[in-house]
Amino acid sequence: MPVIIFEGPKLSREQKSELVEKFTEIASNVTGIGREAFVVLIKENEPDNVGVGGKLLSELKK
Amino acid sequence: MPVIIFEGPKLSREQKSELVEKFTEIASNVTGIGREAFVVLIKENEPDNVGVGGKLLSELKK
Amino acid sequence: MPVIIFEGPKLSREQKSELVEKFTEIASNVTGIGREAFVVLIKENEPDNVGVGGKLLSELKK
Amino acid sequence: MPVIIFEGPKLSREQKSELVEKFTEIASNVTGIGREAFVVLIKENEPDNVGVGGKLLSELKK
Amino acid sequence: MPVIIFEGPKLSREQKSELVEKFTEIASNVTGIGREAFVVLIKENEPDNVGVGGKLLSELKK
Amino acid sequence: MPVIIFEGPKLSREQKSELVEKFTEIASNVTGIGREAFVVLIKENEPDNVGVGGKLLSELKK
Repeated sequence: MPVIIFEGPKLSREQKSELVEKFTEIASNVTGIGREAFVVLIKENEPDNVGVGGKLLSELKK
Repeated sequence: MPVIIFEGPKLSREQKSELVEKFTEIASNVTGIGREAFVVLIKENEPDNVGVGGKLLSELKK
Repeated sequence: MPVIIFEGPKLSREQKSELVEKFTEIASNVTGIGREAFVVLIKENEPDNVGVGGKLLSELKK
Repeated sequence: MPVIIFEGPKLSREQKSELVEKFTEIASNVTGIGREAFVVLIKENEPDNVGVGGKLLSELKK
Repeated sequence: MPVIIFEGPKLSREQKSELVEKFTEIASNVTGIGREAFVVLIKENEPDNVGVGGKLLSELKK
Repeated sequence: MPVIIFEGPKLSREQKSELVEKFTEIASNVTGIGREAFVVLIKENEPDNVGVGGKLLSELKK
């Protein structure tokens, strides 16, 4: 523990690697918990599966 | 914020659009929070990845 | 199944009851799944525990 | 990783301890992943914050 | 309700079936809630989408 | 969208504010999505409600 869940768009491997590294670094510094304890789950969501303000993201991006 | 997460089956684009619109409309009316603040995440689950009453949904649907 | 998770602010019992009823009604109509199958989890978040645009909600509400 | 999230009612410490131990044991056996890698999060929900079949659990329990 | 969410690696159908059955059995025994009330959601995560100790699982597995 | 969920221990307001700010900053830089789109949910878990390696965190901390 702790667990960080990132619900966002499709990402490249480099972006995922950078998010995992920097989220872990910050959370470790802020909480004082060792880096090895941190789990990060990256959830990639299709624009058709995300709603913002009542509209599908895919509709908003047209 | 707020965030509404829908864990359900495979859906068509029309069904997703209707869920996002109506969930947002209701939640905005009930909470008094403006529509634009709402995020909806639709999670589509395969029947093999869902258990009900101790059985896989895919087994129950045979 | 399905499961609807609502991450939002503190709500009254009446608001919760209305959200549960109407979310279930819509989701049942849209998906064709019987009402009895639906689980709704309402998560009430303190303004200190929510960030929007990089700021705590409690800071934004001052 | 992996992470097991249990969304359920209020539980005693003994019940939580038993759930954590047995969930971890099973998941480790089934997946072949070492016990030390498993994180379990127990989420206790008030009956007012849970809906089943369109009704609040607190209403159903009257 | 209750809902058990398993965030883990890719699994075979047999592994999923075993997890669903045994998680439900234990949770029912520990909580006293009937088996039929339990929903289990199995989330399969690619090694590229999981971070442990600041590194992607896919990097750690090289 | 996107949504960042932090499942961790009890935190001070200052720690929460710092997590929200820095998580948002990093995620915005990595994804190219504007800061205002980001929602962060901080979930504080009691040691009795967290299991690591099959044991409650509260037992491990004795």
